Amino acid sequence: MTLEEARAIDAADPLRPFRDRFALPEGVIYLDGNSLGPLPRATGPAITDMVDRQWGERLIRSWNEGWIDAPQRIGDKIARLIGATTGEVIVTDSTSVNLFKLIVAALRFDPTRTVIVSETGNFPTDLHIAEGAVACVPGATLNVVPRDRIGQAINEQTALVLLTHVHYKTAARFDMVEWTARAHTAGALILWDLSHSAGAVPVELNRCSADFAVGCGYKHLNGGPGAPAYLFVASRLQERLASPLSGWMGHAAPFDFADGYAPAPGVKRWLAGTPPMLAMAALESGIDLMLAADPSAIAVKSASLFNLMASIGDDLGLECVSPRDPARRGSHISFRHPQAYALCQALIARGVIGDFRDPDILRFGLTPLYIGHEDVVLAGQILAAILTEQHHLAPEFSKRYAVT
Amino acid sequence: MTLEEARAIDAADPLRPFRDRFALPEGVIYLDGNSLGPLPRATGPAITDMVDRQWGERLIRSWNEGWIDAPQRIGDKIARLIGATTGEVIVTDSTSVNLFKLIVAALRFDPTRTVIVSETGNFPTDLHIAEGAVACVPGATLNVVPRDRIGQAINEQTALVLLTHVHYKTAARFDMVEWTARAHTAGALILWDLSHSAGAVPVELNRCSADFAVGCGYKHLNGGPGAPAYLFVASRLQERLASPLSGWMGHAAPFDFADGYAPAPGVKRWLAGTPPMLAMAALESGIDLMLAADPSAIAVKSASLFNLMASIGDDLGLECVSPRDPARRGSHISFRHPQAYALCQALIARGVIGDFRDPDILRFGLTPLYIGHEDVVLAGQILAAILTEQHHLAPEFSKRYAVT
Repeated sequence: MTLEEARAIDAADPLRPFRDRFALPEGVIYLDGNSLGPLPRATGPAITDMVDRQWGERLIRSWNEGWIDAPQRIGDKIARLIGATTGEVIVTDSTSVNLFKLIVAALRFDPTRTVIVSETGNFPTDLHIAEGAVACVPGATLNVVPRDRIGQAINEQTALVLLTHVHYKTAARFDMVEWTARAHTAGALILWDLSHSAGAVPVELNRCSADFAVGCGYKHLNGGPGAPAYLFVASRLQERLASPLSGWMGHAAPFDFADGYAPAPGVKRWLAGTPPMLAMAALESGIDLMLAADPSAIAVKSASLFNLMASIGDDLGLECVSPRDPARRGSHISFRHPQAYALCQALIARGVIGDFRDPDILRFGLTPLYIGHEDVVLAGQILAAILTEQHHLAPEFSKRYAVT
Repeated sequence: MTLEEARAIDAADPLRPFRDRFALPEGVIYLDGNSLGPLPRATGPAITDMVDRQWGERLIRSWNEGWIDAPQRIGDKIARLIGATTGEVIVTDSTSVNLFKLIVAALRFDPTRTVIVSETGNFPTDLHIAEGAVACVPGATLNVVPRDRIGQAINEQTALVLLTHVHYKTAARFDMVEWTARAHTAGALILWDLSHSAGAVPVELNRCSADFAVGCGYKHLNGGPGAPAYLFVASRLQERLASPLSGWMGHAAPFDFADGYAPAPGVKRWLAGTPPMLAMAALESGIDLMLAADPSAIAVKSASLFNLMASIGDDLGLECVSPRDPARRGSHISFRHPQAYALCQALIARGVIGDFRDPDILRFGLTPLYIGHEDVVLAGQILAAILTEQHHLAPEFSKRYAVT
């Protein structure tokens, strides 16, 4: 595709106006919104209002002027993005902490079922937290198997199937309907990690009868670095599980200051400590932006951007490790390359920000709200030039940073 | 004390310049900094830099430009406020979540010791989380007893003594040296909740050989509503305990993306999910301000403000439930009153913000950095007027809010 063709497609893009709602830096093509979403223009003013007026002027009065309801209010907005309903989603803690709560709760749900089934190469925190969670429930174990053996690993011992909907490296997407049904057929519960899904691909938790989900706020939801995470518990299960992290904000009456814990009704019982209001304001701003976009337009454009980047990779002889079928992937594309780390650094030096995933994956987020076909063509040209010049082999690009 | 006398004392106050470093609203006397610290003037610009430059312009590059080190960098600053040393404190999660990590870890430290000892009427989340934590360790139990029976409850079964240094209602302060020694004499570990202490009264964790501590960032540290919390683990214990919340940010090599969990060396192992950077920026700003103040000047002024408010209470016939001895209390004062809730609402309506703690406590934070003797005299005059006029008995002040 030529730059002119790309510009023509972008000019007709129904999502084009969304690009102007982000404060993208000059001279950067940002293909890492799947790691950290960029700053929405509305977020600065929202944070300023939170800091100067809500905190600075109203002080503790703000707890009764919108703060205390924020975890559920924003959760209800996220519910609309992931096919859940009011009262099923709450914003709280981090994805890691929420995974812990739900895994422990799921292990206690039916004590005859003691095994968590998950996938080798799942996002590390999912597996690490599952390790920690099974250690908190006597007799519980974690069975981590490759994707092609998950089906046979799910059996009458399985308490919970723990899967990440869209894989952080390859973007491979599980069929949520199929795998939820598989878990349920075996009598197991299922927990979907939506960190790379929400805001990127269609998610219909209730259409699948999913049991639990978690997800982060800082990727496709554009909620800011380290934004609060969310969790989903299906309505039918809510009164039958409780959080092992039984903090006061999840208490039925936190301001009675009682010694004994009694879980709040509904999804509020999954709260633990005091909600982080500055971070909540940024997250809500990002969610409001995403709610204004048409999910089907996002899906169409995501597929188009992917196809363009895949064809550029093909032309450059790069090995694409992401599924070609749009229904079977997320909204990023990954290539395997022996110098993936150096290539990533060389690209960043020329203003194309993607990222590297150990040991050999070069990953590009193709986020339809603010990335156009022109960006992809330009990024492809820069990538081609680096490879032709072997610029990535320059010694400065081998320097390892703490965060890759 | 007359208003003129109060003004004269304030004019000579060495902490007086700190008041100008806070954006206190006009027409408000803010006696609730022990619940939510007010906005430091430096925080707005710090947040703007975080949002516009660090997030907006630098995007993911900021992870290698200060973000990834923030939990430990800010933790090291807090260490200086609580008598700890570099590498013993980390900023992460909420107080509730940090309590959970440390209580479970303490229960696993010596499996022959199975009991957590704490106090009836401790801050609720401490007890609630302890309930949740003991349920995660087979055989563990929670023994909650009144203050005068804690000493005899500590024995060879005790794994951990869980105490809040300064009581949230009464401001009664434990002698940290004495109680740490008592726990250690019985072979138990001790965990201090510093939420109402840090920044309010002298804390010398290492002088007491304390084992663990937690605390929140949003009270006397002025870190913003729902600011990230911190935890302290004494150096001598760090390699001997691990977090049950084994999230990826506490992994020895998070960016190796390994399936198996291996805890990071030192205090970083207590991290779980991705650090919340917007909230971190506000917290750091508050901590930096507190580090500039002289702790002994804070102690002297806190005692003086307390004595003034106590004498006003005496004159009004109010029952003071806080200890009169400055060494035995924190930096707030509480009165018991049958119409405490209505009194609190009536005070807020006239611009004096204190708070109510169920069922009958009227609580005032006396925070030396930004409250002067003039504020206390004025607040006392307003309180006296309300009581004389019985204004608090007006029906509008009985309306119950979600957050009291």
